[in-house]
Amino acid sequence: MGRVTVRRSVVKLSPNGRQRRSDVLAAEEPLELRVDGKSLAVTMRTPGHDVELAHGFLLTEGVIGDKEDVSTARYCDGVDDSGRNTYNVLDLALAPGVPPPDSGVERNFYTTSSCGVCGKAALDAVRLKTRHSPAGDPTTVSPTVLTSLPDTLREAQRVFDSTGGLHAAGLFWADGTMLVGREDVGRHNAVDKVMGWALLNDHIPLAGTVLMVSGRASFELVQKAAMAGVPMLAAVSAPSSLAVELADESGMTLIGFLRGDSMNVYTGIERLDDHAE
Amino acid sequence: MGRVTVRRSVVKLSPNGRQRRSDVLAAEEPLELRVDGKSLAVTMRTPGHDVELAHGFLLTEGVIGDKEDVSTARYCDGVDDSGRNTYNVLDLALAPGVPPPDSGVERNFYTTSSCGVCGKAALDAVRLKTRHSPAGDPTTVSPTVLTSLPDTLREAQRVFDSTGGLHAAGLFWADGTMLVGREDVGRHNAVDKVMGWALLNDHIPLAGTVLMVSGRASFELVQKAAMAGVPMLAAVSAPSSLAVELADESGMTLIGFLRGDSMNVYTGIERLDDHAE
Repeated sequence: MGRVTVRRSVVKLSPNGRQRRSDVLAAEEPLELRVDGKSLAVTMRTPGHDVELAHGFLLTEGVIGDKEDVSTARYCDGVDDSGRNTYNVLDLALAPGVPPPDSGVERNFYTTSSCGVCGKAALDAVRLKTRHSPAGDPTTVSPTVLTSLPDTLREAQRVFDSTGGLHAAGLFWADGTMLVGREDVGRHNAVDKVMGWALLNDHIPLAGTVLMVSGRASFELVQKAAMAGVPMLAAVSAPSSLAVELADESGMTLIGFLRGDSMNVYTGIERLDDHAE
Repeated sequence: MGRVTVRRSVVKLSPNGRQRRSDVLAAEEPLELRVDGKSLAVTMRTPGHDVELAHGFLLTEGVIGDKEDVSTARYCDGVDDSGRNTYNVLDLALAPGVPPPDSGVERNFYTTSSCGVCGKAALDAVRLKTRHSPAGDPTTVSPTVLTSLPDTLREAQRVFDSTGGLHAAGLFWADGTMLVGREDVGRHNAVDKVMGWALLNDHIPLAGTVLMVSGRASFELVQKAAMAGVPMLAAVSAPSSLAVELADESGMTLIGFLRGDSMNVYTGIERLDDHAE
């Protein structure tokens, strides 16, 4: 398995002058995902939890809906100059009867309406692909629980503490209990790892949960949450316009700027339970 | 042209209760890039500077090396439900004699060595594709100039101020003068817009410049800088392991954690001119 961090010499410059010291960096390596022997995607990711990452990617792209849809997942051969396996190519075999993914996933995803490619087509495509809509999920969460999530996620971020260089995603029950947390140099990968963990542990659809991410909420993160049936997405930073539109259309609660004791609720405020507070 | 920001109603929750107000969001829309009528990529971006984005993308992917390599760039037809052009499909025609891009850009990029796909193959691929190596660029920059860049970039970030949701990239001369700054919901897009601007304004190779980015320094951002001949990349946050390796191999100076009056110098410290300070 690849390394999650890499140690490197660095010179710190400050008004006190130059100071050479050892620094810990977040590891980044390409991972090629193959499905039934055919290359589907290459992503730059932090090594570790690669099987989860692959399952989460296939789930949130609409290729699989259940862990039974994948029959095997294994690293291909591939060696570096020293002859060691690089563990950077993962081959998944789909179960009999599961249709293979379209080769041009991205292109097919956004071009379903008359505009060729536009925000509305992107929204339509997600609606068509979602097997587990969060709409109608009766979960409510108290603001007090929500404001506790960033700290809980940060405590679980082992690697960030040492490198400062990783995005995090965490899945929580409505009472603030954490199911799983994952980190990655790529924000999409952190969420895919969480989703893959949920799939492999029979938690899909993710009814009754909150997905918390360390950065911004983009269209693609809302899409991933919607594909897994997550009723509430909370982000430390701002959402984009299309993220809010997709959350609205999916019946998902979207929270941004979750910092300190306040937050902005963009959609689905009926899941905020602040009557008793 | 699409909108750069979108206004939306939001409920702010704090210990003072619920407060409904109007919020400004960073716009996000898909952009499809076509080359000679064939779809090459779809990226989620903030509308605006799309022609720069397309040129920068093609430059940093190694498809073009000069603005003369593109003969025309124009929006395709494509209308939304109201019949308005969505400006979300951009078609570029390459000049006669310019080879078309490989259809599977990403895949071809990383699989050039015996390991199939690995960090070393990614480094090798960039070395093979770079037409404008930053190695040997004699530029030096003083730490005082460097510590001024984050503020200059932030001042130029019009949209971030209102939305808090955008990545920024800025190009500077060694004395701290800013050539151009661009913002986008996607970190790669912000850099591509800057690189496209430089190409269209005859600044490639970007000898003597510093590229400053608002977030982390990943492999792909170092790759884009290397492809344009940028000798120094500075980031507000942490670099990844592969970003440092590629900067080292490319002869690029890589600076991280550029905050307040200090910074970490990961590679190419010979370009730091702190003798007079």
